[in-house]
Amino acid sequence: MPHLTALRCIRCAKDLLPAAAPAYTCACGGNLLAQYDFDRVRRELSRAHLATDPDRTLWRYAPLLPVDRGTHAARLNVGWTPLLDAPALAAHLGLKQLQLKDETRHPSGSLKDRAGAIALAVAHARGETRVAGASTGNAASSLACLAARTGMKTTIFVPESAPPAKLAQILLFGATVIQVRGTYDQAFDLCLQACQEYGWYNRNTGFNPFTREGKKTVSFEIAEQRAFEVPDWVVVPVGDGNILSGVWKGFVDFKAAGLIDRLPKLLAAQASGSNAVTLALEGDGKLRPVSGTTIADSISVSLPRDGEAAVAAVRESKGAAVAVPDEEILAAMRLLARTEGVFAEPAAATAIACLSRAVEQGKIPKDASVVALITGSGLKDVVSAMKAAGTPHLIDPDLASLKRLIEQKEKR
Amino acid sequence: MPHLTALRCIRCAKDLLPAAAPAYTCACGGNLLAQYDFDRVRRELSRAHLATDPDRTLWRYAPLLPVDRGTHAARLNVGWTPLLDAPALAAHLGLKQLQLKDETRHPSGSLKDRAGAIALAVAHARGETRVAGASTGNAASSLACLAARTGMKTTIFVPESAPPAKLAQILLFGATVIQVRGTYDQAFDLCLQACQEYGWYNRNTGFNPFTREGKKTVSFEIAEQRAFEVPDWVVVPVGDGNILSGVWKGFVDFKAAGLIDRLPKLLAAQASGSNAVTLALEGDGKLRPVSGTTIADSISVSLPRDGEAAVAAVRESKGAAVAVPDEEILAAMRLLARTEGVFAEPAAATAIACLSRAVEQGKIPKDASVVALITGSGLKDVVSAMKAAGTPHLIDPDLASLKRLIEQKEKR
Repeated sequence: MPHLTALRCIRCAKDLLPAAAPAYTCACGGNLLAQYDFDRVRRELSRAHLATDPDRTLWRYAPLLPVDRGTHAARLNVGWTPLLDAPALAAHLGLKQLQLKDETRHPSGSLKDRAGAIALAVAHARGETRVAGASTGNAASSLACLAARTGMKTTIFVPESAPPAKLAQILLFGATVIQVRGTYDQAFDLCLQACQEYGWYNRNTGFNPFTREGKKTVSFEIAEQRAFEVPDWVVVPVGDGNILSGVWKGFVDFKAAGLIDRLPKLLAAQASGSNAVTLALEGDGKLRPVSGTTIADSISVSLPRDGEAAVAAVRESKGAAVAVPDEEILAAMRLLARTEGVFAEPAAATAIACLSRAVEQGKIPKDASVVALITGSGLKDVVSAMKAAGTPHLIDPDLASLKRLIEQKEKR
Repeated sequence: MPHLTALRCIRCAKDLLPAAAPAYTCACGGNLLAQYDFDRVRRELSRAHLATDPDRTLWRYAPLLPVDRGTHAARLNVGWTPLLDAPALAAHLGLKQLQLKDETRHPSGSLKDRAGAIALAVAHARGETRVAGASTGNAASSLACLAARTGMKTTIFVPESAPPAKLAQILLFGATVIQVRGTYDQAFDLCLQACQEYGWYNRNTGFNPFTREGKKTVSFEIAEQRAFEVPDWVVVPVGDGNILSGVWKGFVDFKAAGLIDRLPKLLAAQASGSNAVTLALEGDGKLRPVSGTTIADSISVSLPRDGEAAVAAVRESKGAAVAVPDEEILAAMRLLARTEGVFAEPAAATAIACLSRAVEQGKIPKDASVVALITGSGLKDVVSAMKAAGTPHLIDPDLASLKRLIEQKEKR
């Protein structure tokens, strides 16, 4: 871990040494933020270095990562997803410039692969033999997918209610899946106990400080793919808040390394039923449990596990937060697919729904340059896609029937 | 269409001029093969040109395509998928060298995006206003996805039995979906009639000569990503045979352009219930209808629509064909996911199941260099994934229950 100097508690600001394993969280309960020796980072990572590096994965940013580009890293071909110009969607929203960071194009179809790759590479570097996590969704399928490539064993804890379709992907990759007769919180707690009992490495979001270090690479790529011109706003779907805090840390670290000269404003995009971060930002900054009920399962959270860092990131960026009802999320899935050909899961489409609201409300000016994170593929949740999609026209198999249909459509 | 000189009938060898639109198939019924002016191609496409071209899409091969890298092409960011080393799977199959061309990483999650991109770019170049096709699967979702990005209108004809989950993706992209009370063949026929009646551009596989021109770019990339060292064998899932004939044309065109100096052998990979090409190759070369019944829906075909070209390609390459039952396809889905972290749909896993058989039967020697095409994402068919995946372990939410489970697993 060459340039990593400490893990700093976001609550009490105490610095822990990275070697003091397994330092997942501070004794005070605060999450940990990785610190780097930026003098050394600057010597190894410059615009000139990047211009000549043929590596088209997140490992091109190795000096700003907690683990080396090593043997296992080469198998974890994650990152460098497309940054798509979105002129048709921009015109629809009344925006001057909009780009989409298309994270659906990762090996397991979501941004979580960035977190999984770094967590796994750290686990291999530490000589761990098994990585565990509690999740029913993208974090688990990403961990299982990437671990299969490096030969790491994985155990995934899920609640009894976990949908069989989501379990299929995790099981197919060969993960051991433990379904507990109980809630998600009970699965999470059993995962913690099991890691202590058996010495497994714990990848849980918020708890493990290195998932954020993986997620921050999406900001490095946004900056580099825009020729180091930082956008005015970045729109980020928010559940646990770990992607948002990662996005912020990416821009902050890149500025500290001298690669960019300013920071963007962040828009936290939430579902109305899962709006703990939005409520905290509108109120006293404190996080309180909400129902967590939304069609956008990847950001359906009662009490965000990295919420403190997320609230701090939005405030530091002078950004904003917006929460939208599920109907607007489904409408945004359609709009995004029809204008830009991107098939997003509901959590990802939430970014577009909230961006639309923020422009309407004047929170984001129309002449701003905006990048929205499309965090996961719509293929992961075809049930929601069916709700958003509409229905086909059913006709008899002859040209006369087709002609009647076309005439009817033209009249409307 | 700068270097395209003619469309040659694969049955009667007659050359049609590309301007003689809409020349989909020859009057004799044979499919058409695009011909190029290779003297001109060589002046614009060399290893030196490619080494300095920053374009990481299939448009880097524009001199060997039937349409220019134009305004719409820039929006169709298809191609340059990863070629993954697969050492763990190679070891399992007893092969010295195996690579996977990971076509699951395309915008709509399948290799069909290559065909859709070229068909759409041709349609735009011809000034067409609507593209139609008959399909329930990857070809339709790819066309709808890419057309949304270029603003082209699309009409998709599907049989009444089309699964709602597959229709959802097509509908979400804004395609007009016509569901006919009848079979797939009736939907196909109505699509033909509608294109004649309304002057729409027909993208149907086999019928449209340019889908093959899109699919051939996968071979260009395999060659270039291997530093122009052609592999001994390429394994291709075969339904209609259009991907196989495209793969072969890619290597043939690249050799004619002086970019490679030899051709690979092709293994046609089929499901036992959909083995028309395999039967033709084992028999008199003639294609006869089969049941087309297999879990691998993307290669489930009664009479292959580009079967003649596929049979010719395997023979010219001195290759082979193998067909496997559905159980072996499901087992290959598991094997591929567990050894290499790639989640393939059944049609794509058929490549691995047939490769395993071909190695066992000595059709492919163990010291051969092999590339297998992983043609589509497993997320497109979660129902099949659930059949292949196995089941989780259900326990009470306490450490004692977990310990009992782990002890039982260790005893086994």
